Amino acid sequence: MFKDKPREACGVAGVYGAPEASKLVYLMLYAMQHRGQEGAGIVVANDRGFDAVRNTGLVADIFNADNLAAMAGVSAIGHVRYSTTGSSVEKNAQPIMVGYSRGNLAVAHNGNLVNADEIHRELEEYGSIFQTTADTEVLIHLIARSAEDDFLDALTDSLKKLKGAYSLVLLTDDSLIAVRDPQGFRPLALGKIKDAYVAASETCAFDLIGAEYIRDIEPGEIVIIDRKGMRSRRFAEKNTGEALCIFENIYFSRPDSWIFGHSCWESRRRLGIMLARENKHAADIVVPVPDSGVCAAIGFAEESRLPFAMALIRNHYVGRTFIEPSQSIRDFGVRLKFNCVREAVKGKRVIVVDDSLVRGTTSRKIVSMIRQAGAREIHMRLSSPPVKYPCFYGMDFPTRRELIAANHDLGQIAEFLQVDSVAYLSREGMLKAMPNHEGNFCQACFNGDYPVDFKNRQEISGRDVKEKQVSRKRITQI
Amino acid sequence: MFKDKPREACGVAGVYGAPEASKLVYLMLYAMQHRGQEGAGIVVANDRGFDAVRNTGLVADIFNADNLAAMAGVSAIGHVRYSTTGSSVEKNAQPIMVGYSRGNLAVAHNGNLVNADEIHRELEEYGSIFQTTADTEVLIHLIARSAEDDFLDALTDSLKKLKGAYSLVLLTDDSLIAVRDPQGFRPLALGKIKDAYVAASETCAFDLIGAEYIRDIEPGEIVIIDRKGMRSRRFAEKNTGEALCIFENIYFSRPDSWIFGHSCWESRRRLGIMLARENKHAADIVVPVPDSGVCAAIGFAEESRLPFAMALIRNHYVGRTFIEPSQSIRDFGVRLKFNCVREAVKGKRVIVVDDSLVRGTTSRKIVSMIRQAGAREIHMRLSSPPVKYPCFYGMDFPTRRELIAANHDLGQIAEFLQVDSVAYLSREGMLKAMPNHEGNFCQACFNGDYPVDFKNRQEISGRDVKEKQVSRKRITQI
Amino acid sequence: MFKDKPREACGVAGVYGAPEASKLVYLMLYAMQHRGQEGAGIVVANDRGFDAVRNTGLVADIFNADNLAAMAGVSAIGHVRYSTTGSSVEKNAQPIMVGYSRGNLAVAHNGNLVNADEIHRELEEYGSIFQTTADTEVLIHLIARSAEDDFLDALTDSLKKLKGAYSLVLLTDDSLIAVRDPQGFRPLALGKIKDAYVAASETCAFDLIGAEYIRDIEPGEIVIIDRKGMRSRRFAEKNTGEALCIFENIYFSRPDSWIFGHSCWESRRRLGIMLARENKHAADIVVPVPDSGVCAAIGFAEESRLPFAMALIRNHYVGRTFIEPSQSIRDFGVRLKFNCVREAVKGKRVIVVDDSLVRGTTSRKIVSMIRQAGAREIHMRLSSPPVKYPCFYGMDFPTRRELIAANHDLGQIAEFLQVDSVAYLSREGMLKAMPNHEGNFCQACFNGDYPVDFKNRQEISGRDVKEKQVSRKRITQI
Amino acid sequence: MFKDKPREACGVAGVYGAPEASKLVYLMLYAMQHRGQEGAGIVVANDRGFDAVRNTGLVADIFNADNLAAMAGVSAIGHVRYSTTGSSVEKNAQPIMVGYSRGNLAVAHNGNLVNADEIHRELEEYGSIFQTTADTEVLIHLIARSAEDDFLDALTDSLKKLKGAYSLVLLTDDSLIAVRDPQGFRPLALGKIKDAYVAASETCAFDLIGAEYIRDIEPGEIVIIDRKGMRSRRFAEKNTGEALCIFENIYFSRPDSWIFGHSCWESRRRLGIMLARENKHAADIVVPVPDSGVCAAIGFAEESRLPFAMALIRNHYVGRTFIEPSQSIRDFGVRLKFNCVREAVKGKRVIVVDDSLVRGTTSRKIVSMIRQAGAREIHMRLSSPPVKYPCFYGMDFPTRRELIAANHDLGQIAEFLQVDSVAYLSREGMLKAMPNHEGNFCQACFNGDYPVDFKNRQEISGRDVKEKQVSRKRITQI
Repeated sequence: MFKDKPREACGVAGVYGAPEASKLVYLMLYAMQHRGQEGAGIVVANDRGFDAVRNTGLVADIFNADNLAAMAGVSAIGHVRYSTTGSSVEKNAQPIMVGYSRGNLAVAHNGNLVNADEIHRELEEYGSIFQTTADTEVLIHLIARSAEDDFLDALTDSLKKLKGAYSLVLLTDDSLIAVRDPQGFRPLALGKIKDAYVAASETCAFDLIGAEYIRDIEPGEIVIIDRKGMRSRRFAEKNTGEALCIFENIYFSRPDSWIFGHSCWESRRRLGIMLARENKHAADIVVPVPDSGVCAAIGFAEESRLPFAMALIRNHYVGRTFIEPSQSIRDFGVRLKFNCVREAVKGKRVIVVDDSLVRGTTSRKIVSMIRQAGAREIHMRLSSPPVKYPCFYGMDFPTRRELIAANHDLGQIAEFLQVDSVAYLSREGMLKAMPNHEGNFCQACFNGDYPVDFKNRQEISGRDVKEKQVSRKRITQI
Repeated sequence: MFKDKPREACGVAGVYGAPEASKLVYLMLYAMQHRGQEGAGIVVANDRGFDAVRNTGLVADIFNADNLAAMAGVSAIGHVRYSTTGSSVEKNAQPIMVGYSRGNLAVAHNGNLVNADEIHRELEEYGSIFQTTADTEVLIHLIARSAEDDFLDALTDSLKKLKGAYSLVLLTDDSLIAVRDPQGFRPLALGKIKDAYVAASETCAFDLIGAEYIRDIEPGEIVIIDRKGMRSRRFAEKNTGEALCIFENIYFSRPDSWIFGHSCWESRRRLGIMLARENKHAADIVVPVPDSGVCAAIGFAEESRLPFAMALIRNHYVGRTFIEPSQSIRDFGVRLKFNCVREAVKGKRVIVVDDSLVRGTTSRKIVSMIRQAGAREIHMRLSSPPVKYPCFYGMDFPTRRELIAANHDLGQIAEFLQVDSVAYLSREGMLKAMPNHEGNFCQACFNGDYPVDFKNRQEISGRDVKEKQVSRKRITQI
Repeated sequence: MFKDKPREACGVAGVYGAPEASKLVYLMLYAMQHRGQEGAGIVVANDRGFDAVRNTGLVADIFNADNLAAMAGVSAIGHVRYSTTGSSVEKNAQPIMVGYSRGNLAVAHNGNLVNADEIHRELEEYGSIFQTTADTEVLIHLIARSAEDDFLDALTDSLKKLKGAYSLVLLTDDSLIAVRDPQGFRPLALGKIKDAYVAASETCAFDLIGAEYIRDIEPGEIVIIDRKGMRSRRFAEKNTGEALCIFENIYFSRPDSWIFGHSCWESRRRLGIMLARENKHAADIVVPVPDSGVCAAIGFAEESRLPFAMALIRNHYVGRTFIEPSQSIRDFGVRLKFNCVREAVKGKRVIVVDDSLVRGTTSRKIVSMIRQAGAREIHMRLSSPPVKYPCFYGMDFPTRRELIAANHDLGQIAEFLQVDSVAYLSREGMLKAMPNHEGNFCQACFNGDYPVDFKNRQEISGRDVKEKQVSRKRITQI
Repeated sequence: MFKDKPREACGVAGVYGAPEASKLVYLMLYAMQHRGQEGAGIVVANDRGFDAVRNTGLVADIFNADNLAAMAGVSAIGHVRYSTTGSSVEKNAQPIMVGYSRGNLAVAHNGNLVNADEIHRELEEYGSIFQTTADTEVLIHLIARSAEDDFLDALTDSLKKLKGAYSLVLLTDDSLIAVRDPQGFRPLALGKIKDAYVAASETCAFDLIGAEYIRDIEPGEIVIIDRKGMRSRRFAEKNTGEALCIFENIYFSRPDSWIFGHSCWESRRRLGIMLARENKHAADIVVPVPDSGVCAAIGFAEESRLPFAMALIRNHYVGRTFIEPSQSIRDFGVRLKFNCVREAVKGKRVIVVDDSLVRGTTSRKIVSMIRQAGAREIHMRLSSPPVKYPCFYGMDFPTRRELIAANHDLGQIAEFLQVDSVAYLSREGMLKAMPNHEGNFCQACFNGDYPVDFKNRQEISGRDVKEKQVSRKRITQI
């Protein structure tokens, strides 16, 4: 993953009714590792209560035959957490797991609340204590304090107080619950494997375990799965303004996943086609930035009838710690990840396709590498519009100051990247590329039109809201 | 440590005002490793908030140069946790660390509350959520919900609601606080190193870092250390019935510690002297069970004018996982820890001295080993009275059913152990041996006289109270 | 890597004249990790003698800041070892490192000798002892026993006795030496970084550290680098029958490497073009098996004017241990590595391009996955001729019995794979695709024409020679 | 272990005829961990050849259920290696394991040859290569080059060429062999467990697995164990001048072992008794330096009728890496290991008993600790004569320059240690204390009378021989 790429907050998964539920969750997290490499956790329900394994690191390193075997039970939920700058710092381990008046409760959350701080403060004033700074904990407190007798009523009641993006899986002593916020920012799919139900952020998790995709959890819907089977209730009216995160389609999800009911792969290919239509340019080859630009580049090459060339070779072993010579000879960061095939680009006019441009620093290094390999011309094409605004619903964009498109015009960007030309896909083109282009997408990062209101709104244009969000007491566990 | 030995709940340590506070806490925990081998944790306060490292395992394995360096700050607290049956299961990691209305708060707790379940239930009814089943979390909720404006008032208020044993160190954003329950069950000492204050369960922690012992925290006292220095307040009247755990003197503390203001080494030696006075028997040598019986055996040998012989050799590398042949040839458990020197005991009448007898199973194996080594007679002598009642204040005794002295007379015990005679120290002798024998000790494990009342009192004679205590929702993290 | 793919024996690297030589070797091994994931090792020369770190596992896991820093010195060599079935078994750790009459000597070897057993037996008869079963050790014994006074004479003398494939880097107390066998089976390139010389199996290793490629070590050449600079001598006549391993071009090397003086990427693309020319078939899309089939598929798509579709998505986190549910629901092996994008193949006639077919078992699973995803037709195209004969020069092919093309005709293979058609590139087409098609390639795996003679020749058609090679005393270190 | 204590080269163990032989060897190494903490290894023979696990670290860390289970076989040998200064440096891993003309051979060696360099050089001249600098490898080369047809003849032949100390266990494809040098410097015992034979440096290894001690391997004897049972042959005349290492009795062996056919515990107790007889001094208590001084202190206390006091408390968790505050407050090294009980020594005249004095630096720190604890007088008593000469047969003494007794008289030593008096046991007293005082002990470290001649003899008085021994090519594996 690129450092200056948007990164989304996490992936979630849940199973109800399968022996070795924790192993199925483990496999689903494995398939969704791209949604978070910082840490992962699984909570399982069994006769003795809840068991959990949560840690920093990759899924394959955290879980092993021993601890998975120790987590017996037929229902479980799990979580992968996105990568922050901090290395060995365990921060806000999920799923969060508590005991309270109704029994045990565990929650895994994907998204970002915009009024969490507000509720957090209110709860503290009433005497609540917080073990994390995660939005999830706010929800649990609301449930615990709810005046409603019934758990589902308490949950409904609490969800109504939340504003922002949240796709949740909840585990109780005897049920699995899946919830998606009224705008449906983040994806959450429902599936079946034999007699068991499964839920996951992306359908690629189902494919790995051989589960069948049924449908998405709907925005504003609560799906409850327990001994009696599956049932649904709503906590928000349908179609009150969906705001599906279009960046899931553009960049974040795995291309083999269905996102918001449609193929992500197809969406990206079509983005590439639209991009080619809008930005004709004489060239010899189309080169994707792997892996984020591959699908769009394939569409681009197809549409523009130019040869597709995998000229940037990715080193598949990157990802672990790496030791540089102290008398550092060159910029290893990018070289470690990629190498450019000279023969593929030498003397050629190269179209480089990537999905988006955030800070632009990695792209600049890649361009320099292609240039050194002998390309005659380099034209950067992005399969999405310029990212100009931060995301408050879960995408880990930097502040406006750092977003290159927020402060620079095309000419300046081309100069920064040292390319012969740079072009973005238009918003219209982007929407047309979406198979469900009637879909009501959140496009706030492109146009600043935030679908869910939040305090400090005014700060967006001024200084950045992002920093605001860490004002809660910071608690870090290494 | 013997499996069937009483084990106490934990050790605590704190530092205020020293650079590299976390390293000093680490060293103090290292010195108190015997108080808990299951897990350990350190929380440090700094400009960014609180940082923590908490894990299962030994102090030397959990902490390393990297994570200690990452925990910058001049005030910190730490905790070592006693060993349960579960191996890789992280349970109730301490210090507990939360954010709440007043800022950050971390607590490390040594002891056992007798009314924690009660308060826990009440808090849950009012909507509190619990991330652990630790008594400590109850206190934090009480503080957070207290109507008092001032933190110390809220703390005082909350402590008044607790019943049972607790020696606490608390860390706030700007202070270190040390508290001992009104009965003073568990030890807690105050020290100084240069300009910094330190607190620890045992003074051996001070010796390691070169800190000077000042005095004990008094029962019912709150000691606050912050920028203004050290000050004290009381939340309970002085001398309203101290109940110092006499088992700290007999077995649990390190002999080089001062416990309750007196030398543990001296107390144990005197227990051995008293034991010898009460139980004269013709013999050739005095052999201690290492390391728990060494001090008393030295006193015994001195008083009885018999040669002291270190005939049981301890393997210093025990403590890690150990793999037996599957066609197990013999009982490795004890052999791995000890070997008996044949020449030391062959043909001799041997007095074996240990501090106490709990289940008796390990002692039985040791006796068998000495017998095989050729001892002519074996006389078991215990430097404390028969343990007949469970402990509700933190010692990890088994249930009454398993306490050998609760159900057997001396003859039966001798037969079980396969010794020629067995004798205990009398309660009078024990008290006389204590340097501060005016001290008001808790002797509940010997006489069933529990100094702090608790519900279900009646169950002691009937079935055991112990199991009751896990009725709270079980939450286990591996 | 596919289980049923040919795997070659190792990669080698060397540095002379650079501070932190071991770090540069580490980086080069990192770039060549694909040549061997079983284990790796580095030996460095310094004032104190030789230091080494050798272990099983991946480069990034074996080496760390500490052990690299501990290996000071300006000259070093390294080795990555191919993956065998055995997991934690350390076998024949390289570089081999010894002391003998002339001082210290370390050798890293890529290839396979065909007369190693013979020499081994002879040496043993004369009293030599062997610590490994590696071919490399044979060479070292020959050098040590050589009657020649001068080291280079002894080396030349010894090399003349070897038959088979070997690209070697040798480290002495004061020099680095690079050698390639007279047929030049395996690649070995020479480079420069500032004033230092480097050698590596593949040029992608140079790219990572920013070294400049100078030329290949020639077949039969010894290149010596020491304080006096670089010089060359030959131990075999030039052009006495080169036999460059064509499989390096087809599959084994990284596409961004130059192999035998030409771009591997370009060779593979041309193989795809030739394949398309020879095997026209009506189809809708071209899908590569990642990553081995990507370059050829790009060429194929280009030539056949069919859309290129990256429909098999690779999971980038595969490679670590993986835990299956014990009631295994499906075949996880392949699903873990790949997922097929339904939308890309549904209802389509799909050309699947891979570089070669060995056992065919993985391909069969991939085909089944594509079929389940809804492909209408599946046509398998291989960018090399049928592999019918085992390799005795380093490629880890299975025995003839297991080579699907050795025992089945096209119809049977198509049936086994469950494809609508299967077609291979012709030998003529393959040779034409090679940029240096005048090059004298070893094609033994395709036509059974082994360029270097070996004993038991007759066994090829009868039972397999492979097993023969382990007849040497087996020594395994876990 | 004290840094400035003599440390001996290793412990060895072997099993023939038991299922799970590797587990029995593991347990025996575990019991002999005190003989070497640097590293350990096990080699097992089975149908497939030899398997090995060898690494740096403690026995309990190197071996686990997995790798022990992977080492199937009914015969095995093992080795623990002494601790050098280097930390993570793997040096000369034992057992050494090779293949040669007769099959497989593995050797574990305890001791030090004095003519290894000489033979090494000769062998190199004849073309031998060496993978380690271990003496053991010299022996293996001699066996491999022997003109004798029969393995035992070749072994006998080769052993005759060795000079110095060696207790060996050898493993061949079908036998276990145990050898002791003609002088019998190092111990080696033979035992039986059910139908299997075992061999070990110390009998405490037998006790752990429940094996029965039969007898010692005799100096100059070869004991062969195979399917036909146990048989013996000699390669040197009996009683041609035994030279049993008296330091095994004084310090190195575990007190519960039988060494040279007698109880080590009893020998040490008698050394203490002799010490007390020779050095009467008015005092209040006898305090041992744990654990090396305990047995002698017990004898001393018994003989002098003074109370025995375990006033130095040992921290049982020492041994792992330890992190000091960077602004180091005090000397942690000794504090981490020991703490002195104030009450035990305050105002008292203390006799401190240790087994020997090498550099004196640790003793000096201990004395200072006792002094700070309030002792009125401190009298250091050593249960052996002054160590004045280096050991060339395996004990890891420092050079003469560093041996405090080699260059200082009693007054100077007392001043260095800051004690009121210091006294050693006389050589006569020491010999009288040995149960087999007719035994022909090597006392070279006390009197410089080296029983086995070696080159460079003259250097002892001049500069030190020690450094000489590393002149062989240094090969270090991390």
